[in-house]
Amino acid sequence: MTPPPAKQPTALAPAQPAGERPADAVPPRLDSLPPLRVDGRMDRLRARLAGDGIDAAVITAATNVAWLTGFGGSNGTVVVTVDGAVLVTDSRYADQAPEQLEAAGCDAEVVIAGDPAPVGAERFGAASVVGLEATIAWGEQKRWAAATTAELAPMAEVVEELRAVKDPAELARIEAAAAIADEALEEIRPRLRAGVSEIEIQRGIDDAIRARGATGPAYDTIVASGPNSALPHARPTGRELAPGDLVIIDAGAVVEGYRSDMTRTFVVGEPSAETVDMIELVARAQAAGVAAVRPGAAAGAVDDACRSVIDEAGFGAAFIHGTGHGVGLDIHELPRVRSGATAILRPGHVLTVEPGVYVSGVGGVRVEDSVVVTASGCRALTRHPKDPRP
Amino acid sequence: MTPPPAKQPTALAPAQPAGERPADAVPPRLDSLPPLRVDGRMDRLRARLAGDGIDAAVITAATNVAWLTGFGGSNGTVVVTVDGAVLVTDSRYADQAPEQLEAAGCDAEVVIAGDPAPVGAERFGAASVVGLEATIAWGEQKRWAAATTAELAPMAEVVEELRAVKDPAELARIEAAAAIADEALEEIRPRLRAGVSEIEIQRGIDDAIRARGATGPAYDTIVASGPNSALPHARPTGRELAPGDLVIIDAGAVVEGYRSDMTRTFVVGEPSAETVDMIELVARAQAAGVAAVRPGAAAGAVDDACRSVIDEAGFGAAFIHGTGHGVGLDIHELPRVRSGATAILRPGHVLTVEPGVYVSGVGGVRVEDSVVVTASGCRALTRHPKDPRP
Repeated sequence: MTPPPAKQPTALAPAQPAGERPADAVPPRLDSLPPLRVDGRMDRLRARLAGDGIDAAVITAATNVAWLTGFGGSNGTVVVTVDGAVLVTDSRYADQAPEQLEAAGCDAEVVIAGDPAPVGAERFGAASVVGLEATIAWGEQKRWAAATTAELAPMAEVVEELRAVKDPAELARIEAAAAIADEALEEIRPRLRAGVSEIEIQRGIDDAIRARGATGPAYDTIVASGPNSALPHARPTGRELAPGDLVIIDAGAVVEGYRSDMTRTFVVGEPSAETVDMIELVARAQAAGVAAVRPGAAAGAVDDACRSVIDEAGFGAAFIHGTGHGVGLDIHELPRVRSGATAILRPGHVLTVEPGVYVSGVGGVRVEDSVVVTASGCRALTRHPKDPRP
Repeated sequence: MTPPPAKQPTALAPAQPAGERPADAVPPRLDSLPPLRVDGRMDRLRARLAGDGIDAAVITAATNVAWLTGFGGSNGTVVVTVDGAVLVTDSRYADQAPEQLEAAGCDAEVVIAGDPAPVGAERFGAASVVGLEATIAWGEQKRWAAATTAELAPMAEVVEELRAVKDPAELARIEAAAAIADEALEEIRPRLRAGVSEIEIQRGIDDAIRARGATGPAYDTIVASGPNSALPHARPTGRELAPGDLVIIDAGAVVEGYRSDMTRTFVVGEPSAETVDMIELVARAQAAGVAAVRPGAAAGAVDDACRSVIDEAGFGAAFIHGTGHGVGLDIHELPRVRSGATAILRPGHVLTVEPGVYVSGVGGVRVEDSVVVTASGCRALTRHPKDPRP
């Protein structure tokens, strides 16, 4: 096969009923999501570029291109100048690209070309400084350098910063994805028993996510039991759950390109005293982190809030990763949520709060929610209960 | 979640019995695959670098790193010098990386560091020209440029060219993946009836692929029916199959990181005369392409063979993509198989042969096999029957 579009634009089936969720916060159904529109985004980028002294910009990261234009293909380059924009893609997308741009309200011209550099260079006009995303492949950058006399300036996290703040249509998709993952975990929970393998549980969750109309899991679903739970990035294995095991399940869904991210930790049978302490500790740390999410706070303060709870309990060395990350079209995006992170949280930021402790030979506990920053604090998008009993 | 390893190293379950396949070519079972070993690969790279006037190299593409070292994580950089090699990765992989390298027979040192550039620069020694993969992000390249006084030379498709030729253990995995996709299509075939939606068929195939122990589909499975079949990169929709539809199914599986790729076209109910002609034409073109695959031939000759059959029938303008591509750790890799491709086919090359014709308003037909170049010709790895009746 040749590369398919990176994004599935079609909603497929209604989500299941909202179940136990509060009536005031029923997640959007897949068949009634508000349309995704990109109006105004190109102008917000232009304003940002002007402030940075950049006259024109070349956007190549697929999720940035999708956010700016609505284009869902795997090969697209957006050239933004002060008075225009063009999407360069290849012949596979000759029909799809104009349709998707029109549906999203993007008025960029579509040009079909094998190499975007000469097309872009022609549009630069009198631009003396052209921004190129720092994520562009070096070999591609050299093609642009050969095609233009303008100075090329690396742009790091420019579009990423703009799209970190979600609009209601984007939020609706993340929330729908989160609700699907909530329900998938609900469906699989009775199967968290001794003798069932990690991989069987993973498959059950992934099937349940797809059966509810999501495009699929938002990332490789993690199911880590017993000693494996002490590894934050364990991949599911054939290991069968055993009595007393901690089981970390980290699962999200994708709806129209937007991702959710959630982790819960369960115990098989009777937990040991040590396990109970770890679960209680992480629950407190996670709640403290969520409580620290509010507009105007530095993202690092969320990490501090989680970490101080864990430090005070003497488990500081067992919390071996950052507290979280933004989530949206990418599973890891801005804002960063880790020690020292200076980004100021704003309404519409969606981020994860996921402290964990990992003790070799015992196991690990991680609890994670995706939350959206609101006018006064935050609201959890992932709502599966946190009770560690399956 | 934080990024999981790119590769699932664990084989999970035996493949189903080989069924209708010739007894002399039973595909390998997942529980008896020969071990993947990387012995000698680093030296083959060194020989290639020496020929190119490169004193040391930095390898960053994940599949290249995996092929060279056996490391399956998402973040690894290999620095290769004349007399040594080091894998730089982050603390998440402190345990996994040495284990995987040892299992694969790689003697590179493992260094845990946040930024590989200073570590690599220290190892360059007296190297005056250091090769950097052209696929490295421009921003990363700038970090390397700041860390070393050596001249940085872009390397394009160096490791990719080496790994285009598969060894028996790699072939066994591609063949096992192909056999799983063959069986998944066999399982779903009776469901190709009017009233069943594209997305249901896709889900059935993907489930069948996973149920047979593959890691998952090798790419987003394509099911394109009726008018959708005229789009080579259609994504499955809720459209229900209707009598007379052409249905293109493009599906592959992943086994331990290695991918297969196959397309078949079916007809729902009675085909029209035009449809019969298209099916017969593509079958002839595809057979001509496969017949042209032999060691010593230029890859472009395979494209020529397919294209001349389609051109002669007057459908040249309807064959709107190249004939194929290499397949392995990546779904698209070397050798390229398209008009003018000069790569000379060698035993161990694995490539697809996938001509198609697409007629707007009527539909499309594509037939694709993955084949391995042998000493005297080629051998098909994908073997699902080509009969268009479901």
